[in-house]
Amino acid sequence: MTDFSKTRSLFHMPDGVIYLDGNSLGPLPVNAQQRVMETMKDQWGDMLIRGWNDGGWMQMPRRVGDRVGRLIGAPAGTVIMGDTLSIKVYQALASAIDLVTGQDGQRRVILSDSGNFPSDLYIAEGLIQSLDRGYELKVVAPEEVEAAIDETVAVTMLTEVDYRTGRLHDMKALTARAHAAGALTVWDLAHSAGAIPVDLAGAQADFAVGCTYKYLNGGPGAPAFIYVAPKWAEKARPALSGWMGHERPFAFDLTYRPGDGIERMRVGTPPILALAALDAALDAWEGVDMADVRAKSIALCDLFIAEVEARCPGLTLASPREGTRRGSQVSFRHGEGYAIMQALISRGVIGDFRAPDAIRFGFTPLYIDEQDVVQAVDVLEDIIANRLWDEPRFKQKALVT
Amino acid sequence: MTDFSKTRSLFHMPDGVIYLDGNSLGPLPVNAQQRVMETMKDQWGDMLIRGWNDGGWMQMPRRVGDRVGRLIGAPAGTVIMGDTLSIKVYQALASAIDLVTGQDGQRRVILSDSGNFPSDLYIAEGLIQSLDRGYELKVVAPEEVEAAIDETVAVTMLTEVDYRTGRLHDMKALTARAHAAGALTVWDLAHSAGAIPVDLAGAQADFAVGCTYKYLNGGPGAPAFIYVAPKWAEKARPALSGWMGHERPFAFDLTYRPGDGIERMRVGTPPILALAALDAALDAWEGVDMADVRAKSIALCDLFIAEVEARCPGLTLASPREGTRRGSQVSFRHGEGYAIMQALISRGVIGDFRAPDAIRFGFTPLYIDEQDVVQAVDVLEDIIANRLWDEPRFKQKALVT
Repeated sequence: MTDFSKTRSLFHMPDGVIYLDGNSLGPLPVNAQQRVMETMKDQWGDMLIRGWNDGGWMQMPRRVGDRVGRLIGAPAGTVIMGDTLSIKVYQALASAIDLVTGQDGQRRVILSDSGNFPSDLYIAEGLIQSLDRGYELKVVAPEEVEAAIDETVAVTMLTEVDYRTGRLHDMKALTARAHAAGALTVWDLAHSAGAIPVDLAGAQADFAVGCTYKYLNGGPGAPAFIYVAPKWAEKARPALSGWMGHERPFAFDLTYRPGDGIERMRVGTPPILALAALDAALDAWEGVDMADVRAKSIALCDLFIAEVEARCPGLTLASPREGTRRGSQVSFRHGEGYAIMQALISRGVIGDFRAPDAIRFGFTPLYIDEQDVVQAVDVLEDIIANRLWDEPRFKQKALVT
Repeated sequence: MTDFSKTRSLFHMPDGVIYLDGNSLGPLPVNAQQRVMETMKDQWGDMLIRGWNDGGWMQMPRRVGDRVGRLIGAPAGTVIMGDTLSIKVYQALASAIDLVTGQDGQRRVILSDSGNFPSDLYIAEGLIQSLDRGYELKVVAPEEVEAAIDETVAVTMLTEVDYRTGRLHDMKALTARAHAAGALTVWDLAHSAGAIPVDLAGAQADFAVGCTYKYLNGGPGAPAFIYVAPKWAEKARPALSGWMGHERPFAFDLTYRPGDGIERMRVGTPPILALAALDAALDAWEGVDMADVRAKSIALCDLFIAEVEARCPGLTLASPREGTRRGSQVSFRHGEGYAIMQALISRGVIGDFRAPDAIRFGFTPLYIDEQDVVQAVDVLEDIIANRLWDEPRFKQKALVT
């Protein structure tokens, strides 16, 4: 049984804050500062260039990737860290298109849905434009994805958990459907990794990508990850063929030869300080059973929905009511959602706002419990009942929402 | 006049080390630890998600980019930080190809040279293969570049300072030659930024990229930069069209619209801890005159060459003898170069080895002086005179050389 009082003690939380935005940026793990300091002082400072060998820096993307892999059902050696999620989407999509087009030149549809995170769609647009070979990004409603998978589809590019509503796609079923139609799959796990049990191998996913600054608490702009199924790892052509993905980076050959399997998805020099912070953050998952996390996450979300609906009139649930159909977050719609969220934040209840009208709350069992949920709704109830959001200062749009 | 005794005091240097590898990884600036700690504790820890607004995180790639820009002759608002150098090469090359092809569909040659850093060549190979439209990567000897620029060339992709020999290309002359032939230029400043005076605007360079972990001392895997000339900034199509380069990232539109000018070269969520370390490192350049740096760099390199040639038989100079034709590094060839370098490192004189036979020494006036040079040659002389390199432990190849 996972000891959530212990995991809670592993994170720094400012006084007076109830943090329901771990789905956007996870909080600081208390051991991360020390780890980054050691990496700076004992490794960068004292080892200098020797850190690449003696500090184990060169293997960090693979070693940390394996640690992430254990949380998403990926076998050792199938996940590697680096870059940002958008870059990883580009790599996965480019390789997937390449593999399918090699098999069937007629397939030209990249299928996604309107609940996907926009950056994934933007990256696909850019790639398609660069390729200039008649590929088409087809964006359907989330509930229409299954029916839209047909023989024209080269690749499905889907985010498992909808960033706005928390709606969950059935990865296994959609992957099977894609494979039956002859397509490959790219899964974005941004709101899945560390939030819900993921079984990439069991679902037979082809490619998967994700970020680590949300439920994995790696810090602002922490490195992303990419998974390539073993069946494709030696066949995938890396579109971003950087030296760290070369078979022998330090031979300095003039021509590219892809490295073994997942290694070819490395691009440039890995970000060691960021990897050190992430590596420390992943310690929090030792001894944690993802089934326990899922059960508590659903309980917290259910409690939040029940409390809000009982006490906060005017808010409309935007997330699936059924716990097993959600990720680890709940959203409500309200025409004054932006101002309501600013009022909440001013009272220490931190969630976020997603245009046009959703206020979004992430529930992260590692450091959030039932009492936090009830207290957060107490504040929300007060703000709604007394229209405390109706102040000019809460309506000024910030750069980042 | 730059006070180099002051700049020297800004870096942590382990006892007994003479560090001549700042061209590979700059040393730890003493203020960087504190800065990263504050970013972790006061911003990530206490501001949490609010750091994106209140901590100024969202503007960091631009603000830090401007600081780098001042060292490379780039006007404010033309440089932005992010990703790795290989990714930035991909972006610059893709955009440059796009711009030229729009003007002249017959140009199909990407011209580079065999002294370019291999990753740049690999990235070009991968891009060309993805584009699949008959582009060709033509790699000539460095001294043949000028003559090879003709009307078939779409883009020249050159590294100003050769990573192995330190040989310097004439950026201004080659850019003028490329423009006269109707081509665009991508300049890699990996071994230029912070090493020599660079005048991107004066040279009329079109695109430039570089890393910040060498002479800019940003730390292992520090973020890269990209420069786009103002004349192209609003015309360049970003191949890696991620959400941070969108005109309005937080509108979450389903279709991409490039941001203003250089902003469109942002891709994913910026690496805040790494940017904080780099930002601190850039403080060392306050009050530093790059002309002073250049004069001292040439003097240090000249002294090193003279001392080695006088005292270390069997080593052949692999760098240009003329100081103004070199970057801030000197290489010598020797058949046992690898073992010699390992023996040097074991005695605290840290340089590096570049296959097949070059031992490489970087001279960084911010923290290296004449006494270091003489002492380093004392050790090298002893190693050569007494064949101290001739031990099995010095011949075992490490992962990273």
